[in-house]
Amino acid sequence: MNYQRFFEEAIDQLHAERRYRVFADLERIVGRFPRAIYRANGQAQEITVWCSNDYLGMGQHPSVIGAFQNAAGQMGSGAGGTRNISGTNHPLVELEAELADLHGKESALVFTSGFVSNEASISTIARLLPNCLILSDELNHASMIEGVRRSGAEKKIFRHNDVAHLESLLQAAGRERAKLIVFESVYSMDGDIAPIAEIADLAEKYNAMTYIDEVHAVGMYGPRGGGITEREGLAHRIDIIEGTLAKAFGTLGGYISGPSAVIDAVRSYAPGFIFTTALPPAIAAASATSIRHLKSSQAERNAQQRQAEQAKHILSEAGLPVMPSVTHIVPLLVGDPELCKMASDRLLGVHGIYIQPINYPTVPRGTERLRITPTPFHDDALIETLRDALVETWNALGIPYRTSDQPSVAKSERIIPLLVPKSGG
Amino acid sequence: MNYQRFFEEAIDQLHAERRYRVFADLERIVGRFPRAIYRANGQAQEITVWCSNDYLGMGQHPSVIGAFQNAAGQMGSGAGGTRNISGTNHPLVELEAELADLHGKESALVFTSGFVSNEASISTIARLLPNCLILSDELNHASMIEGVRRSGAEKKIFRHNDVAHLESLLQAAGRERAKLIVFESVYSMDGDIAPIAEIADLAEKYNAMTYIDEVHAVGMYGPRGGGITEREGLAHRIDIIEGTLAKAFGTLGGYISGPSAVIDAVRSYAPGFIFTTALPPAIAAASATSIRHLKSSQAERNAQQRQAEQAKHILSEAGLPVMPSVTHIVPLLVGDPELCKMASDRLLGVHGIYIQPINYPTVPRGTERLRITPTPFHDDALIETLRDALVETWNALGIPYRTSDQPSVAKSERIIPLLVPKSGG
Repeated sequence: MNYQRFFEEAIDQLHAERRYRVFADLERIVGRFPRAIYRANGQAQEITVWCSNDYLGMGQHPSVIGAFQNAAGQMGSGAGGTRNISGTNHPLVELEAELADLHGKESALVFTSGFVSNEASISTIARLLPNCLILSDELNHASMIEGVRRSGAEKKIFRHNDVAHLESLLQAAGRERAKLIVFESVYSMDGDIAPIAEIADLAEKYNAMTYIDEVHAVGMYGPRGGGITEREGLAHRIDIIEGTLAKAFGTLGGYISGPSAVIDAVRSYAPGFIFTTALPPAIAAASATSIRHLKSSQAERNAQQRQAEQAKHILSEAGLPVMPSVTHIVPLLVGDPELCKMASDRLLGVHGIYIQPINYPTVPRGTERLRITPTPFHDDALIETLRDALVETWNALGIPYRTSDQPSVAKSERIIPLLVPKSGG
Repeated sequence: MNYQRFFEEAIDQLHAERRYRVFADLERIVGRFPRAIYRANGQAQEITVWCSNDYLGMGQHPSVIGAFQNAAGQMGSGAGGTRNISGTNHPLVELEAELADLHGKESALVFTSGFVSNEASISTIARLLPNCLILSDELNHASMIEGVRRSGAEKKIFRHNDVAHLESLLQAAGRERAKLIVFESVYSMDGDIAPIAEIADLAEKYNAMTYIDEVHAVGMYGPRGGGITEREGLAHRIDIIEGTLAKAFGTLGGYISGPSAVIDAVRSYAPGFIFTTALPPAIAAASATSIRHLKSSQAERNAQQRQAEQAKHILSEAGLPVMPSVTHIVPLLVGDPELCKMASDRLLGVHGIYIQPINYPTVPRGTERLRITPTPFHDDALIETLRDALVETWNALGIPYRTSDQPSVAKSERIIPLLVPKSGG
């Protein structure tokens, strides 16, 4: 039994499939977002990040950093314990109240990550319901899939955003059986949006619980940043809204919000919540500051939508294969893992532009892509620089441009009107 | 199907079993550790925390807070992405090098929590080994149990710290089968220590991999804070050493260290690592500062050991039922969940002393306890105040004092000499 061999073989397999990942060593620069220092082979260079999930740049907002630094100065760098054993810090209590208010729910519960919030909540909710059937969208995030698996409950996968398929599964299960529908609002790799109203209708008709993941929407959609459910006036029709603090809000952690009884049950029964150290007060205070800011300020949301539209427009005009997206996410089809990696490497090495390649298993084979996330700080000049770099890269590597028969990868073609003015063009 | 009812019943059951947990809302005060503001029923009062896992008070160390604030000011409040997609920040890369060095291992990998590090690492390692048998100590932490479960591998539980039992299981499995032994160094509820050398001997004899959880030891034991494995010169004999940044190091997160091939495989295959936002640069920078400080400074370790010994001595002298512990953890037997909760409430309400009750399922029924964790900042005067408060509480509630036939709850009676001078008496 040579243990080392098995781990080496596992790594070799990733290399053989061109799926071995090298992490870019980055140092972001406050005040100069989206610029960062990139280090490799003993050298450092300044680059532009075009694939950050700090979607609104709130991670460098002065009031957020101020709250972060102040809380650390007053309360220290850590929580010092689990939530139950001395770790429940006052900013965390305030943050949970802020989150419950954001979604118009009775209660909220914060976790150390969005991954843990999905895994712990879905598995615990489904385990507490007798003979629960989980109905799960086929493109749900890995964390939701882990939650479904860990629940031990029976599951049925419905085709992505396919309400007819979902209805047939609900009908087969019948009204009396406990059912939990788990899905996302914004699917982050395609940038499409779930038919939330129709799913809520079905949940009502067949008496199912609903659990929505809004991690790629909170802060960015809805007049107070409550996500797509807020924008569409549907938050009250969904039982559990899950979100993250680590994307648009610019910090760390995840959460659920919903009826007090459900939140209290997850709080009391989920091992992944109970047996882990609480988030530090600085993270909680910075998160609450960010949420409060985005509850009243529309500037970041408007600018993000404008720059995302602008990027789609400018890249499309250059013939680049922009995939259909009704959100702030701008996927660019490459369609080959090797080329996708080479394009990313060339953008970084030649142009100082960092866009991580997205390959299988994160997306289906043949749909490998560059996933671009314009923020309010990616101005028009940066978009033009990006276009020029992409065109040079597309030419140098012979990547196909947009063709009339380019397959539409985004599954949802529903066009939802943006709340903000589109850019000129 | 009334969903609400099931969640309410689950909560009612906890109330009925006296296991419903109310979290204490705390605001720790930098510079006045272990003092904190406690809020309840709209009122705030200052109290002394006696159950923190910020074991050395590093969460309020000026250089740690300084590193935390500086990194936030320069790099922002969040990482902005997963490790693979723009979230690998430079302080995190430096932190992993620091951790590998701490344990004398080739590599280290940081997770957002110790819980996730155990769950993701154990499950991934065992899944990559064909037909792996996991041998797990019966008192392993919930996060390790989740990792074992999630691996899908066959498991055998060995009696706590019982090397004869472990050997019989290893023997039955044979040399050729892949085997992973998972155990802790310091068991945090009893404060006893695993027979690491004997387990390493067995692992060698039967060709098993070893995985040790040192979360309650790193920073506090060994001349550089490398844990019990460092103190006993055994780090090189254990394959994977897991630890936390959220206890003695005073921040947030967990990690594993070990051979590069294993670390790289976990990095590449563990969903709980891949699909989650990286720790913020401020947390990484503060952690590295704390680790570096404790690699050279013995003052915190010495003072902690002295105060722990002092607390054991003073509480024992008063006849209080201090349970055997060879570490910094001072468990006080109550033996009844209701009394344990009442004692905790009385200490807080009457004496301004916060010690969370530890009841089933965290510890076996009948061994309910107060778990006291003296730090370098719990000076002799505070210990005397604690003793007086405990005696008052024991008398008021009629909790049994130490008796000659008090059951010894700590399973390991091995006395390991402390590296630091014991207190006077």
